Amino acid sequence: MADVPILVLPAGFRAGAVKAGIKPSGGLDLAVLVADAPCRAAGTFTTNRVCAAPVRWDRERLPSGTIRAVVINAGNANAATGEAGYDDARETATLAAGAIGCPPEAVLVASTGVIGHRLPMHKIQQGTAAALALATADESGFRAASHAIMTTDTVPKVISRRETISGTVVTLLGMAKGAAMIGPRMATMLGFLLTDARVTESNLQAILSEAVEESFNCISVEGHTSTNDTVLILASGLAGSSDLSGADLAAFAEMVRSACKDLARMIPEDGEGSTHTIAIDVEGCLDREEARSLARAVADSPLVKAAIHGADPNWGRIVSAAGYAGIPFEEHELSLWLNGTALYADGVPLPFDAPAVSAHLRADRRTHIRLGFTRGSASIRFWTCDLTAEYIRLNADYTT
Amino acid sequence: MADVPILVLPAGFRAGAVKAGIKPSGGLDLAVLVADAPCRAAGTFTTNRVCAAPVRWDRERLPSGTIRAVVINAGNANAATGEAGYDDARETATLAAGAIGCPPEAVLVASTGVIGHRLPMHKIQQGTAAALALATADESGFRAASHAIMTTDTVPKVISRRETISGTVVTLLGMAKGAAMIGPRMATMLGFLLTDARVTESNLQAILSEAVEESFNCISVEGHTSTNDTVLILASGLAGSSDLSGADLAAFAEMVRSACKDLARMIPEDGEGSTHTIAIDVEGCLDREEARSLARAVADSPLVKAAIHGADPNWGRIVSAAGYAGIPFEEHELSLWLNGTALYADGVPLPFDAPAVSAHLRADRRTHIRLGFTRGSASIRFWTCDLTAEYIRLNADYTT
Repeated sequence: MADVPILVLPAGFRAGAVKAGIKPSGGLDLAVLVADAPCRAAGTFTTNRVCAAPVRWDRERLPSGTIRAVVINAGNANAATGEAGYDDARETATLAAGAIGCPPEAVLVASTGVIGHRLPMHKIQQGTAAALALATADESGFRAASHAIMTTDTVPKVISRRETISGTVVTLLGMAKGAAMIGPRMATMLGFLLTDARVTESNLQAILSEAVEESFNCISVEGHTSTNDTVLILASGLAGSSDLSGADLAAFAEMVRSACKDLARMIPEDGEGSTHTIAIDVEGCLDREEARSLARAVADSPLVKAAIHGADPNWGRIVSAAGYAGIPFEEHELSLWLNGTALYADGVPLPFDAPAVSAHLRADRRTHIRLGFTRGSASIRFWTCDLTAEYIRLNADYTT
Repeated sequence: MADVPILVLPAGFRAGAVKAGIKPSGGLDLAVLVADAPCRAAGTFTTNRVCAAPVRWDRERLPSGTIRAVVINAGNANAATGEAGYDDARETATLAAGAIGCPPEAVLVASTGVIGHRLPMHKIQQGTAAALALATADESGFRAASHAIMTTDTVPKVISRRETISGTVVTLLGMAKGAAMIGPRMATMLGFLLTDARVTESNLQAILSEAVEESFNCISVEGHTSTNDTVLILASGLAGSSDLSGADLAAFAEMVRSACKDLARMIPEDGEGSTHTIAIDVEGCLDREEARSLARAVADSPLVKAAIHGADPNWGRIVSAAGYAGIPFEEHELSLWLNGTALYADGVPLPFDAPAVSAHLRADRRTHIRLGFTRGSASIRFWTCDLTAEYIRLNADYTT
């Protein structure tokens, strides 16, 4: 971890993590994020109709001005577990609330891992108590939490920001996890943001929702929208004596947006088995949703992803994926660049040096696809990764 | 070919194929289907906005009562080639029309292969002339054509039917190709049906469209809707002296539907690199489109496909894929069976013998997924295949 930058920490929070025995690997798998006093909080969640029990619990609580903690476990998603699973989520919150001394409704929960299995409540109970006892305002606690929420992630994903807004120093810490089953339609697997900014619940929710639209909702690994997607933000309000508003609120919103984008991009960068991170810029669209639909179709095409993996400049797969995105464009409205080389202009293929484009794809593990339309002025940047035999190997043998 | 059943042939057609030098492999790559006299014809085509030049040409011609031939090449899709590509399609039709002695508008064309390259017109010209000269009403001509339309297919896909409808013997021959870039939204890669039934153009179009909805529009390999999807039917009318109607027309429609289903299923069975064919039954839906959306989400999930490949009974991936299909069902409306074993009932997971289900998945290359909803009475059967490292290998290095 020598190359990991030092984190700046928002005032009013502690964190801790333990090995509760939920992950078969035996690693850290239960984390708590604890606020010293009631926090304002907001969240965004999966749109999957099969939504996990912790998503149901949290959705009923947010936005809120009284949140004290989040209990997160990896190794078991507590999804597709029926009413019994919901009872387990409530019991987890109740256990933590008892130790903290707050109502169960002040505790949020999040889970990630295998779908369809009941939570091992005995392990959850012992782990939650132990993690709460260990929770510390020191950087080590947040580092441990960022490790405990990982499943097949190969690296922890944690960032922090500190900015001065109208003379007030505001700090934001974020962590996320995810490496597969990534095709967010409202949020992504798990993301947690802690800040000491003083912001009303309604502003916090609006800022988070907008930031998620441009970050976690602009990434995919294989396009499979998870049952557990959750992004939460907790604001202790200890930085400043009045609620942020006007230009200050906008500055804070930009801070959140920037942090969400950095965290979101780390997920496809760690995509299971991937060898390339792919940035897809879609420009010149009627609106952002049109741009997102076009980007998502390209990002989720196994044929496009396999071509990038093979350093194959088979650009017909890219334009044909855009073609089935459900957007009624005409071919002459579309131009395409791959790693800066123009391949297709106004619906007509261009001559290009295929060996050179292939060599560039092979040499650079970051790939840039740019689709330029002439339909309007809306654009989006989307992030995904390539599809490899290693991804198949990893996912052909996950539960068994 | 010793195990291939003998084909029955509809009256009024000839077929031929040659090695025109379009495929790098040097195999058969240009086929003609020729009618002795003007035929009634109908077609269904891709909904991809980037549609191939031959699709544009054919769409403008159909339905029609005057079709004489179809010229088909493999190795080059003539897609994303702009107006020049459309001119190439017209020139191909014109060349064939000159040899046959009919207007260019009486000749349909179809192409499959790499996107974004101009057709090698010199080879198309020589190949078309040679194939027309070779065309024969003998079975060998139709066999050769079914080979010439293949790209990465490992087996030709050709079937025939003969039935007596109100005392008239009606014969139907069908052929198709496709092994990847299969996610039809109106039709699939290429399918051709020839019959001697006497049916009006409008009935022919209605029968074909309905049959395609239940066959080629119910399959996928990786869900990438092609630029070239085309299914054509030509009816010589030589069987019978009056147009089919009433119960006779219905019997013919059933013949076409059955033939389309058999042909369509052969495509995922030959899916690139696949080791399992997966039948997905979705039952108890409000309407067929709802059932199709649910089936397609499951069929196109790389996580579901990789789990089947690995004989992993990770059923949470199946219910979570259904959950993001865009259908507003509740979890308690869903039950799931895998190869006949109930895994999830009314939104609650069931205990099951995981090693036994895994062993069944491993032993049987046909997998059956059944999703039972309690929303209505509509159902659909969808066909796909698993996703393997071999698929990735094949598609990481296709053009280069």
